[in-house]
Amino acid sequence: MVKVVLLGGGNVGYHLTNNLLNNTTIQLIQVYNRSIEKIEYLKTKTTITNKIEDLLDADIYIICISDNYIAEISAKIKFKNKLIVHTSGSVSINEINSTHRKGVFYLLQTFSKERNLDFSTIPICLEASSKSDLEILTVLAKSISNNIYNISSEQRKALHVAAVFVNNFVNHLYQIGNQICETNNVPFNVLKPLILETAQKINTLNPIDAQTGPAKRNDTSTIDKHKTMLTIQQKEIYTLLTKSIQQTYGKKL
Amino acid sequence: MVKVVLLGGGNVGYHLTNNLLNNTTIQLIQVYNRSIEKIEYLKTKTTITNKIEDLLDADIYIICISDNYIAEISAKIKFKNKLIVHTSGSVSINEINSTHRKGVFYLLQTFSKERNLDFSTIPICLEASSKSDLEILTVLAKSISNNIYNISSEQRKALHVAAVFVNNFVNHLYQIGNQICETNNVPFNVLKPLILETAQKINTLNPIDAQTGPAKRNDTSTIDKHKTMLTIQQKEIYTLLTKSIQQTYGKKL
Repeated sequence: MVKVVLLGGGNVGYHLTNNLLNNTTIQLIQVYNRSIEKIEYLKTKTTITNKIEDLLDADIYIICISDNYIAEISAKIKFKNKLIVHTSGSVSINEINSTHRKGVFYLLQTFSKERNLDFSTIPICLEASSKSDLEILTVLAKSISNNIYNISSEQRKALHVAAVFVNNFVNHLYQIGNQICETNNVPFNVLKPLILETAQKINTLNPIDAQTGPAKRNDTSTIDKHKTMLTIQQKEIYTLLTKSIQQTYGKKL
Repeated sequence: MVKVVLLGGGNVGYHLTNNLLNNTTIQLIQVYNRSIEKIEYLKTKTTITNKIEDLLDADIYIICISDNYIAEISAKIKFKNKLIVHTSGSVSINEINSTHRKGVFYLLQTFSKERNLDFSTIPICLEASSKSDLEILTVLAKSISNNIYNISSEQRKALHVAAVFVNNFVNHLYQIGNQICETNNVPFNVLKPLILETAQKINTLNPIDAQTGPAKRNDTSTIDKHKTMLTIQQKEIYTLLTKSIQQTYGKKL
């Protein structure tokens, strides 16, 4: 059976570890983390370590640590010619130390320890420096999810920046919505069905067809009224996004 | 049985009409629209008209037309002392002509003709100029949805601007994500599970706690790399929203 060592106890590492512990295709033989306390809860389920020199001999090493340390930690894995993969959206496959076979195993989802996720729907974006290693990663990925894509480092960079727009920035807009509700004593819960429907709508409509609202309608009187209700920072965002929608639909303020 | 006339054949009017036709608490006796063609599909189910002077005598008139014409059309309803409600997020209750009893029946959701919606979860924000009329509207609203709120005109204005952020602007960010994918030959579908999870996450986490990404982490090297991949307009939005997230979490670029 394929033996896997996972490095990293952050959000991605946490969820992937828990998934791999229940995986029947591979065997998770060890988890590494810089601070042992963070992974102590695993000690009855697999080997744990905080010493990179104590890593066990495995077939695949999955690095789930901060982007900035991927090159460094991959260079410290003492075994040669192992399949080493990272899980980062924005790091090139070539940052993995060159004494190893290289791959990428990018789970395109937002992970928080507080929320359990259905792994079977998480897109896994694969890349490998050889066809045979891509096959090995495909077997591993298919044992986790039904949503597998072959994605180059260049494409993955694009996906990562797109994900910043549809996830990080979208969540920030939710937070501004929440702020406006709090300032005006309205429960934020009133907006939650709208938030969910906005996300679900693009399963059947292209976002460009799903767009509604005063910016698209060029309803300047509503736009002006809205601006009077916002803080300076909120108004700056409102103005820029309104302008961008207007430009998309060929209308001018 | 309470008799209702609905005015307007746009997205909200279309969905509300179809819902009210199956409602057993009230009777939808007529639908009005400026262009009769748009509502001809209703002629086997209820009375239809495009002449405001032909409106039937009803208990409640629901105005689902453009914000700018609500005052005008309410003034043209020939019967006196009727309960007239509009369904707009941004128009004050007082724009309804003063010869009538007034109310607001605001369905806080995004409507497209192409998508069917589960009305039982749609928040309905009610307002009325008298307690007895609020009771009438509450009975009507409860026959449609389980999500009823009493919301003043001031609060409704705030909700409407918040809805622009969490719906219109969010959809525009989806569209930018889609654009970035197209430019880089990546299927936009890869991002859809992330989009859905981002929306669902705030059911259990406050948006301020759900925030992740390079802006929050102050990961300037990733931020700089991302900016090189964007168009001028995308970069302007990226920069402003990144700055806003940094300010929210007390970090400086």
